[in-house]
Amino acid sequence: MDFLSGFFTGFLGQLQSPTLGFLIGGMIVAACNSQLQIPDAVYKFIVFMLLIKVGLSGGIAIRNANLAEMLLPAAFAVAVGLIIVFIGRYTLAKLPNVKVVDAIATAGLFGAVSGSTLAAALTLLEEQGIEYEAWAAALYPFMDIPALVGAIVLASIYTRKQRESFKEEFPSKQPVAAGDYAGEDNYPTTRQEYLNMQHGGASKKVEIWPIVKESLQGSALSALLLGLALGLLTRPESVYESFFNPLFRGLLSILMLVMGMEATARLGELRKVAQWYAVYAFIAPLLHGFIAFGFGMIAHALTGFSLGGVVILSVIAASSSDISGPPTLRAGIPSANPSAYIGASTAVGTPVAIAIGIPLYIGLAQAFMGG
Amino acid sequence: MDFLSGFFTGFLGQLQSPTLGFLIGGMIVAACNSQLQIPDAVYKFIVFMLLIKVGLSGGIAIRNANLAEMLLPAAFAVAVGLIIVFIGRYTLAKLPNVKVVDAIATAGLFGAVSGSTLAAALTLLEEQGIEYEAWAAALYPFMDIPALVGAIVLASIYTRKQRESFKEEFPSKQPVAAGDYAGEDNYPTTRQEYLNMQHGGASKKVEIWPIVKESLQGSALSALLLGLALGLLTRPESVYESFFNPLFRGLLSILMLVMGMEATARLGELRKVAQWYAVYAFIAPLLHGFIAFGFGMIAHALTGFSLGGVVILSVIAASSSDISGPPTLRAGIPSANPSAYIGASTAVGTPVAIAIGIPLYIGLAQAFMGG
Amino acid sequence: MDFLSGFFTGFLGQLQSPTLGFLIGGMIVAACNSQLQIPDAVYKFIVFMLLIKVGLSGGIAIRNANLAEMLLPAAFAVAVGLIIVFIGRYTLAKLPNVKVVDAIATAGLFGAVSGSTLAAALTLLEEQGIEYEAWAAALYPFMDIPALVGAIVLASIYTRKQRESFKEEFPSKQPVAAGDYAGEDNYPTTRQEYLNMQHGGASKKVEIWPIVKESLQGSALSALLLGLALGLLTRPESVYESFFNPLFRGLLSILMLVMGMEATARLGELRKVAQWYAVYAFIAPLLHGFIAFGFGMIAHALTGFSLGGVVILSVIAASSSDISGPPTLRAGIPSANPSAYIGASTAVGTPVAIAIGIPLYIGLAQAFMGG
Repeated sequence: MDFLSGFFTGFLGQLQSPTLGFLIGGMIVAACNSQLQIPDAVYKFIVFMLLIKVGLSGGIAIRNANLAEMLLPAAFAVAVGLIIVFIGRYTLAKLPNVKVVDAIATAGLFGAVSGSTLAAALTLLEEQGIEYEAWAAALYPFMDIPALVGAIVLASIYTRKQRESFKEEFPSKQPVAAGDYAGEDNYPTTRQEYLNMQHGGASKKVEIWPIVKESLQGSALSALLLGLALGLLTRPESVYESFFNPLFRGLLSILMLVMGMEATARLGELRKVAQWYAVYAFIAPLLHGFIAFGFGMIAHALTGFSLGGVVILSVIAASSSDISGPPTLRAGIPSANPSAYIGASTAVGTPVAIAIGIPLYIGLAQAFMGG
Repeated sequence: MDFLSGFFTGFLGQLQSPTLGFLIGGMIVAACNSQLQIPDAVYKFIVFMLLIKVGLSGGIAIRNANLAEMLLPAAFAVAVGLIIVFIGRYTLAKLPNVKVVDAIATAGLFGAVSGSTLAAALTLLEEQGIEYEAWAAALYPFMDIPALVGAIVLASIYTRKQRESFKEEFPSKQPVAAGDYAGEDNYPTTRQEYLNMQHGGASKKVEIWPIVKESLQGSALSALLLGLALGLLTRPESVYESFFNPLFRGLLSILMLVMGMEATARLGELRKVAQWYAVYAFIAPLLHGFIAFGFGMIAHALTGFSLGGVVILSVIAASSSDISGPPTLRAGIPSANPSAYIGASTAVGTPVAIAIGIPLYIGLAQAFMGG
Repeated sequence: MDFLSGFFTGFLGQLQSPTLGFLIGGMIVAACNSQLQIPDAVYKFIVFMLLIKVGLSGGIAIRNANLAEMLLPAAFAVAVGLIIVFIGRYTLAKLPNVKVVDAIATAGLFGAVSGSTLAAALTLLEEQGIEYEAWAAALYPFMDIPALVGAIVLASIYTRKQRESFKEEFPSKQPVAAGDYAGEDNYPTTRQEYLNMQHGGASKKVEIWPIVKESLQGSALSALLLGLALGLLTRPESVYESFFNPLFRGLLSILMLVMGMEATARLGELRKVAQWYAVYAFIAPLLHGFIAFGFGMIAHALTGFSLGGVVILSVIAASSSDISGPPTLRAGIPSANPSAYIGASTAVGTPVAIAIGIPLYIGLAQAFMGG
C-alpha cells in the first residue's frame, strides 16, 4: 500500500498548490455570484506572456542542447507527443457523451510535459545511481510543443468540419473557430451531435493545410512559436531571467483564477462523463510512458541512448502539463471545457505519473540493466 | 517640544515617500490638464492585484498564528475595528457639510492598520525591553479586514437608503451602488441633503442582509476575501513571495497616481470641511488606541495577555492604513473622495499615531508594570 | 581593419540582443499574417511604465549629482541635445522623399543617450587611466531629455503647420496631432508634399507656445516629466528599484515586438530613402561627438572640466538611445515610422559610435593631454 499513500500525499499536495488553489478559488468566487472580473485586455496579455515564456524556455533549452547527439531521441519525443494526441482523439473522444474538443484538449495536456514530475524523476534517478545523458532533460520541448500544436490543429480541423456541416443545416449561426483567444463557445459538440450531423450531410472533404496554417496564425500558436524562435535564434536570457520567468507563476495563478470562474458554469457538462475522464487519466499516463519506453529502447539499441535516458523519455511522456498546457489550450482551443482537462490532469494524471509511473519505469530499466 | 519635532520629521518623511509623492504627482498632472491616463482595464487589474495581496498576506499571517492562544485578543481586535468605523459614522459623518460616504471611508482607513506604524512600535518595544507574545503582530488582519469590510457595508447601506428615498422623489436618476469598482459618482450625499431627503419621505426600513451580501459580492470585497481564503487554506507562499508581494509597492504607486489625478477635481469639495477632517485625524488615533488599550487590559486580566501585547493592540488601533486601505476603499466605496481619507490619514493621522500614540501607550504600559 | 572587425562584432551582437530580436520577431509575426496582438490598453500602460522609468532614472541621477559644480557642462549638454535635433531637422529632413516627422524622430533618437555606449566608454577610460569627474556620467539626462522633448515639440509644430495648411485646402479631414499615444497616422508628410502645400496657401504664422504647451500636456511628455519631477523631488528609490527598473527591459521587449509588428507594414515607405538614413546614421554620431567635444573644451578652458569628462560628453552626444528613445518617440510622435529611427540607430548609429566614436574622442583627448 506504499504507492497508495504516496498517491494520496501527492493528491493532497496538488490541492494546496497555488495553481489548483487559484482554480478552486475562481470556481467558488463564481459560485458566489461575485462581480469579480479580470478585464479582457489584461487577460489576453497574461495569456500572451505565458505563451511567450513557454516558447522561450523551450527554445533556450533546445539551443543549449547537443542536437546532433540527441537527434534520434528528440525525433522519438516528437513522435510520442503526436501519438499521445491521436490516442486521445480515437479513444477518449469516442466515448459516449464526451465532447470531442474537450477530449482533444485533454489529450494535448497529457502529451505536454510537467516540469515538476520531470524534476521528481531526475532526483530519484540520481538517488538510485542510474546514469543518464546531461541533455536528456532537454528532450521535453520536443514532446511538449508538438503535442500542444497537434492538439490545437486537430481541434481546428474538427471544429471546421463541424462548422461546414452545421452551416449547411443552419446557415445563420457562426461557431467560433479554434485558434483564437477566448470567446464563450457553447457550441454543441458531443459525439452524438457530431454523428447526427454526419448523417445530416457534410461528409465532404475538408482541406487540412489551410486549417493548419490558420491554427499557426492564431494568437496562441503565434505567441508560442515566436517565443520558440526567439529562444532558439537570439540571446533572450537577460530578459527571460529578469521578466518572463519571474512573472510566470504569478500570471499563471491569475489565469487559473479566470479558468476557475469559467469552470463553475461548465462543471455540469462533465457530470455524465466524469468517470470516462477518471479512467483515461489513470490509464493514459502509464500507457504513454510504456510507448515512450519502447521508443527509448529502440534508441538504446541503435545509438546507445542510456537506460536512464529511456526512463526520462518515459516520464516526460507519462507526465501531463500544469504549466505550458493550460494557457496554450485555453487560448488555442477556447471551446474546450477547462474543467475537463485540468481536472483530469491535476486530480488523477499527475499523482498517477509520479506515484506509479516513475517507480515503474525505473524498475523496468533496472530489470534491463540486470539482464 | 520633543514630540513636535518628531511629528514634523514624520510629516516631512511622509511627503517624500513614493506613496504620497505619486499622489501629489497625479494631482499636479491633472491640474496641468495633461492627457496622461491609465487605461481603465489596467487600472481595474491593478486594484485586483492590490486587494488579492492584502487578503493573501492577512490569510497567511492568520494561518501561521497560534489561533487558540490568541483567541480573545483577536476577537477584541475585530471588535475594535468595527467600533472605530461606527465612531466615525456617528461623529465625523454628523458634522456639518461632511459627506457621509467620505466620513465612513475615512473611518474605515483609520480602522485599517499601517504596517510601518506597527513596525515602529515593535522596534521601540524591543529597545525598551518590554516583552510581548510572538503572535501579537499577527493580530493586525483581525482589525484591518473587519474595519474595511465594515466601512464598505456601512457605506452600501447608506447609499442604498439614499437611493431608495431618491427614487421616490426623482425616479429617473440612478446613483451607482458602493461595492463596484470605479465610476464617477458625484451623487450629493452631505448630511444636510440626507436630512432633507429624510423629510421628503423614505424613512421606511431598508433590509440590511441583502446589502451585506451584495457588498461581499462586489469586486472589491470578493478579491479581498478570495485572497484571505487562499492565504488561509492553501499554500500560496511561493506565488505570494515571487509575484504579489514584490509588485505591490509599485502597483500601489500607480494607484496613488490615479487617485491623485481624480483628487484634483474633488479637492474643492473639501474646502469647507477640511478643519473637521484635521480635528478627527488628530483625535481619532489617540482615542482608538485608548479603546484598544482598555480591551487589551481586559485580556491581560483574564488570560494573561502581556502588557507589550496590549501596547501592540493599541498601536494597531491607533494606526491608519496607507497600504491596504486606499485600494480597498477606492474600489469598495467609489463615491467617496480619496482626498478626504488619504489626506486625513497621511497628513495628520499617521504622524500623530507614531509621534504621540506609540510613546503614550508604552508609557501607560510601563506605569501598569510599575504598579 | 581593427575597427571594421570591431564594427561587425558590435553589429552582430546588436542583432542577437533581445531588444532587436523582439523587433525582428514582431516584423516576422506580422509578415506571416498572425493574429497575435497586444491589447491597446496594455500597450498604453507599457508605454507609460517605460516613460515613467526613463524620467525617474533621469531625475534620480540629477538629484544625486553635484549641480553647482556641473552647471556649465550640464548647460552645454542641454545645448548639444537641442542642436542635434535641429541639425537633423535641417539636413536629414530636407533630403528628397524623406518624411519630415521620420527625420525629426531619428534626430531625437540620435540626440538621446545610450546607457550601454556610455558604459563602454567609461570602461575604456578607466583602462587607459584617464581621469574624469565622478558626476560626469550624470550629464546624460541633461542631453537625453531635452533632445526627446525638443524632437516632439518640433514634430508637433511641423504637424500643426501641416494641419493648418491642409485644413484650408481640405477642411474635412483631421490628421492626428503629435503628442498623443498611438493612432495610425498615415498623413502624407514628405518634404515634397509639404512644399506643395506651402504653395497652395498657409504661409501664415503658426503660434509656437500653444504647441509647446500642448506637447508637454500630451501623454508621452507628461509621463516623462512626471517621472523626472518625482525622481528629483521625492525619494522614489524603493519603488524604482523594486518595480519600475526590474520591469523595464521586459516591457521594452514587448514594446519592440509591437513596433516590429507595425514596422512590417511601413517598411516599404523606406525603400527609396534607406540610403539617406544610412548616410545620416554613419556621419551624425561622429559629428555630434565633435560638436560636444568643442563645447567640452570650452568648459575645460573656463572651469577646468577634465579631459576625461570632455570625452564622456562627446560619447553621450555620439550615442543614440535604444532605451529611452523608442518608447518616448513612439508615444510622442506617433506618425513617425519606427523602422526609420530604430533601424538607423541600431543597425548603423550605435556600432559607429562604439567602434569609431569612442576610440576617436579618447585619442583626441590624449593628443590634448600630450600637448
